[in-house]
Amino acid sequence: MKHSVALGIDIGGTNTVYGFIDDEGAIQFHEEIPTHGSISVMDLIDRIHNKVSNFLTDNTKYELIGIGIGAPNGNHYTGMIQDPPNLSWGTVDIVSIFQDRFHCDTVLTNDANAAALGEKAFGLAKEMNDFVVVTLGTGLGSGIFSGGQLLYGHDGFAGEMGHISIDFNGRLCNCGNRGCLESYASATGIKNTVRDLLKKYPDNELLKLLSKEKIDGFVLDKAFDEGNEMALEIYHYTGEKLGYGLALVANLLSPEAFIFYGGFSNAGERILTPARKSMNANLINGSENEIKLLQSSLPQGQAGILGAASLILSN
Amino acid sequence: MKHSVALGIDIGGTNTVYGFIDDEGAIQFHEEIPTHGSISVMDLIDRIHNKVSNFLTDNTKYELIGIGIGAPNGNHYTGMIQDPPNLSWGTVDIVSIFQDRFHCDTVLTNDANAAALGEKAFGLAKEMNDFVVVTLGTGLGSGIFSGGQLLYGHDGFAGEMGHISIDFNGRLCNCGNRGCLESYASATGIKNTVRDLLKKYPDNELLKLLSKEKIDGFVLDKAFDEGNEMALEIYHYTGEKLGYGLALVANLLSPEAFIFYGGFSNAGERILTPARKSMNANLINGSENEIKLLQSSLPQGQAGILGAASLILSN
Repeated sequence: MKHSVALGIDIGGTNTVYGFIDDEGAIQFHEEIPTHGSISVMDLIDRIHNKVSNFLTDNTKYELIGIGIGAPNGNHYTGMIQDPPNLSWGTVDIVSIFQDRFHCDTVLTNDANAAALGEKAFGLAKEMNDFVVVTLGTGLGSGIFSGGQLLYGHDGFAGEMGHISIDFNGRLCNCGNRGCLESYASATGIKNTVRDLLKKYPDNELLKLLSKEKIDGFVLDKAFDEGNEMALEIYHYTGEKLGYGLALVANLLSPEAFIFYGGFSNAGERILTPARKSMNANLINGSENEIKLLQSSLPQGQAGILGAASLILSN
Repeated sequence: MKHSVALGIDIGGTNTVYGFIDDEGAIQFHEEIPTHGSISVMDLIDRIHNKVSNFLTDNTKYELIGIGIGAPNGNHYTGMIQDPPNLSWGTVDIVSIFQDRFHCDTVLTNDANAAALGEKAFGLAKEMNDFVVVTLGTGLGSGIFSGGQLLYGHDGFAGEMGHISIDFNGRLCNCGNRGCLESYASATGIKNTVRDLLKKYPDNELLKLLSKEKIDGFVLDKAFDEGNEMALEIYHYTGEKLGYGLALVANLLSPEAFIFYGGFSNAGERILTPARKSMNANLINGSENEIKLLQSSLPQGQAGILGAASLILSN
């Protein structure tokens, strides 16, 4: 008897992960490949097509029952990736392309929604109906479950928590608006904070180190753990702003938990402790200390493919 | 054959409306009575019980099939009204009390959710799956539909849009937090704005008039329509702040429309025009001008009883 698997694909700005997942949530095989977002999307699709075809030819016990895709700006309703940031693809009808290639059901959602679906199907949120997955990386994304249902909104673009403003006169965000949560609480946000702090402390060694290149979470975490004052200040400031955003969402949606996922979520309690304090100070209805802030327990890079695959497996 | 009706009750801080609604949404009878929130809740319940019993005795063609109640801080999950603001009742197990009295199904929700249910069942939102009803009165409340489902959240208290902060260093709200939307965009908010403007313009006649007592929407609307500069400024400022709150919600939930209900919503385009401009300026994803801001078409005071009754009629 064939072993049914779904192909889960998580397309990221830098790397793409794909994997074969069975209905127990066991990842039978997975691999990370570069996205190459500056060239045609067909290059990525060709590479995935070859790898998947070869795998299924070499492993005849598996039967592919469908494909779930998570991608930046992936629209569940239209099946299109619409002008993804950091990828030069414009709008891509990715569901149709995959259906033509693989002749099987293909479903699309955005990357943060895929992570939320992964937590619901196989992670910390299995027993939760109301939770928000916050993806912390270069940017800040979110996938929202309420009443046991993933929220898509009218146009498929619900969950833009990175672009709720915590200060309408605040920092200019890449999106053109001011005070977006992402411009404070993400790798990009920390880069902004380092830039601002350097004006005040031009000779600080940690700030000079951090300003040189891409924000290195490892360097910052290590400095924090050694008690470096500037690292403490950076995480305190970032956590406070993150907590503002959490309070906004919590007052609207009353979730049981926020679950943090993505590279920058490895900061863990270094950022969640000040975020919790700031969130609690801005809640109403006596819900202080009731909303859990949790770090995802799914392996880094796997929530997305698990969640994307769950779109197929849950049918 | 008996004519089946649900009893819809909308408990407000000052007045309570109750009415008998059939499954076409036709209100067979309704009446407004004072709530008397400073004395025991049993007084209100006794009065409703007497009136309803008398009506059903006098009108034998009606059969009561259930009771839906909308109330401030009404919790759908627990059936309890929990420490309602402006009512001295503490926590009341209102569902049990009504079930004991009337021996029929009784369902509770909060007042803003009842208005949203009314719009969905019988109002502008019949064909919408993703919309937010904003109740503008003394305070600001909201009932949120997403994916065709009313959002309750983990504890039943989702939809506290009046207490999302649009400025974490802003006005002190009655709830103890800062910058809550309600402290700007509601009758209470306008009272705050008038107080602040009086410091700058102590001799302004309109401000002096408005500061004297409860904010009178009629006086303010009339001054606006006559081109009074201060009335224009008040609505421009209030609308701008309201738009900030709408943008926060819209970026998170991507609704098709916001529907405004409640006494202060009679300001209509006087406040919705600046709110729309401010909201659009703070949206992402090119959704400017796509989210509708609408005034409820349900008669004032009836959305709540219609929505509360729909909890029974929709089963």
